[in-house]
Amino acid sequence: MKANRIHNFNPGPAALPLPVLEEIQASFLDFEGTGMSITEVSHRSKQFEAVLNDAVDRTRRLLQLDDRFKVLFLQGGASLQFCMIPMNFLRDGENADYVNTGTWSTKAIKEARILNKQVQVVASSEDRNFSYIPREIAFTPDAAYVHITSNNTIKGTQWPAFPDSGAIPLVADMSSDILSRRFDASKFGLIYAGAQKNIGPAGVCMVIIRDDMLSRVPATLPTMLSYTTFADKNSLFNTPPCFAIYTVQIVLKWLEDTIGGLAPMAALNRRKADVLYGAIDASEFYRGTADTDSRSLMNVTFRLPSEDLEKRFVAQAMENGLGGLKGHRSVGGCRASIYNPTPLAAVEALVDFMRTFEKKNG
Amino acid sequence: MKANRIHNFNPGPAALPLPVLEEIQASFLDFEGTGMSITEVSHRSKQFEAVLNDAVDRTRRLLQLDDRFKVLFLQGGASLQFCMIPMNFLRDGENADYVNTGTWSTKAIKEARILNKQVQVVASSEDRNFSYIPREIAFTPDAAYVHITSNNTIKGTQWPAFPDSGAIPLVADMSSDILSRRFDASKFGLIYAGAQKNIGPAGVCMVIIRDDMLSRVPATLPTMLSYTTFADKNSLFNTPPCFAIYTVQIVLKWLEDTIGGLAPMAALNRRKADVLYGAIDASEFYRGTADTDSRSLMNVTFRLPSEDLEKRFVAQAMENGLGGLKGHRSVGGCRASIYNPTPLAAVEALVDFMRTFEKKNG
Repeated sequence: MKANRIHNFNPGPAALPLPVLEEIQASFLDFEGTGMSITEVSHRSKQFEAVLNDAVDRTRRLLQLDDRFKVLFLQGGASLQFCMIPMNFLRDGENADYVNTGTWSTKAIKEARILNKQVQVVASSEDRNFSYIPREIAFTPDAAYVHITSNNTIKGTQWPAFPDSGAIPLVADMSSDILSRRFDASKFGLIYAGAQKNIGPAGVCMVIIRDDMLSRVPATLPTMLSYTTFADKNSLFNTPPCFAIYTVQIVLKWLEDTIGGLAPMAALNRRKADVLYGAIDASEFYRGTADTDSRSLMNVTFRLPSEDLEKRFVAQAMENGLGGLKGHRSVGGCRASIYNPTPLAAVEALVDFMRTFEKKNG
Repeated sequence: MKANRIHNFNPGPAALPLPVLEEIQASFLDFEGTGMSITEVSHRSKQFEAVLNDAVDRTRRLLQLDDRFKVLFLQGGASLQFCMIPMNFLRDGENADYVNTGTWSTKAIKEARILNKQVQVVASSEDRNFSYIPREIAFTPDAAYVHITSNNTIKGTQWPAFPDSGAIPLVADMSSDILSRRFDASKFGLIYAGAQKNIGPAGVCMVIIRDDMLSRVPATLPTMLSYTTFADKNSLFNTPPCFAIYTVQIVLKWLEDTIGGLAPMAALNRRKADVLYGAIDASEFYRGTADTDSRSLMNVTFRLPSEDLEKRFVAQAMENGLGGLKGHRSVGGCRASIYNPTPLAAVEALVDFMRTFEKKNG
């Protein structure tokens, strides 16, 4: 770690790999010999198209997507997807299943209902403060899709495996764990992910869409709210968020070429989570908030014996170069977000600090 | 100019001021002593809120906005605004006036009609290939708003002064000339501008909205498509495009503190345009495409005697470090985009090249 950098446990925007930042910095005044910054290059130039296509190709390889899938880059974050999904996929008289596992699922359900779409919540973990992932779900046989949130940043839960929805396409908000592990993408009709956690900066949302879902899109939608627009134009209908897509590309290059792909990435993420949960479980002072079998490998949420101690923990951690450990303002407590870019050394430094803090205050 | 930088006449994404790029580069690994890149800083941090609020405050000062206005930052570009405007401002039974001055106006009209909104085109310059700005327009007395495109990047026209719509609020797409000159903002109900021409990189759209327009917004819109969402939360309902907003802030700081504000900026823009149009008018070889009294100070469109010469002109200019001079793919010809960041020296270098090229080929 460079002397002037902290260990960054922010929930999003979150840490990026240092080599990625260094590459962007080094080429910032002259991108690929163009004599321009990446921020000044035309989105219709061959240089930018190469960036975009490389980001798409790497995503395809990393997730082993077959030819039915398109990889798109949109703006508006996952929050805009919450309304685009029902607009694009639910025609009059159709319905969809939603699983409610926390704040983001709740928002997705709310946006579908604002549009007067028929959605049913087929499972929820609200009864125990969203501290677990529901099992044994009865899906609606004629549902157009099943919506899930793969990882819940605020409550620190994550689907350990995805539910079997049979022939019903899964639609998943993977903002906080996309490309953190391997899974069978073929079951998904749509995957979307705000980039600012695992794969890039804020300002771009990756959307992976399967061709049968594209065939559902009505012709009468506003152009910028139709997935067809982005699929037909390789995300270049209008000016895309070029810098954000470029950063995603460099992150994916790091993930594929430096880390070695999803298998070693997943192993590293598992190792980081094991180290941190291990420290929590070995202590009476720290207490995890999620059910053990639903724990997130990305967002480790925990409490201390009192709110006063939590406040001091977060403040003293910051003084020791460990940032972003405050829990979400809606729930309090502490949270360490340890997405793909977070190195094991950062987690080890955190665990060291936790032990020291416990000794002084436990 | 540094040896490895070109003179960049791209229409957008476009040139940024070199000092802006250098400042971003220098702080890219450690923003304001946070030990994080600006791309890694939380949008809820005091550091990012300072960035956002400074961008808002500078815009307010530069445009002399009174307290009725809010300055917002959205995603999706001007293209998303094309549908948001009628969604937010046209209730059932209401209608709006649109002036059609080219490709972007045409798209704005199209999106309103996709939504089945009643809009009338009260003036158009389509009869002469959008080469002029219509004068003497009869607005519809009960129109909810009048939509105009202040500058037309593709055809190279610009409203020399804004039309008098009486009590009807003006709504303007100022993507390609925002903050390039002074004007009376008080007549406008809404101003919007994709940042990637005059004020920043792609990936953020500035929206300036007056309170009477906010009072028109229906309560039933999807959250991310309602101006109220962004106005109520100071653009922080969800994660905003942080890096793009930050770059806008640094550009506005340059505009206000280095250039000295809108009056000197406008004088410089006028001077650049005079030099370039002067060269075109002094020649029989180059021919401007827009009516003289409708010429854009931002996008100077011109033709050469043949398409073959135009192709060679663009290619040889590039070899001489003058990039982005090809006309829009829909119209051909040549175009030099000379937004705020383009220095006079770039225009002078272009004029020198034009003279040399004419001598060899005229």
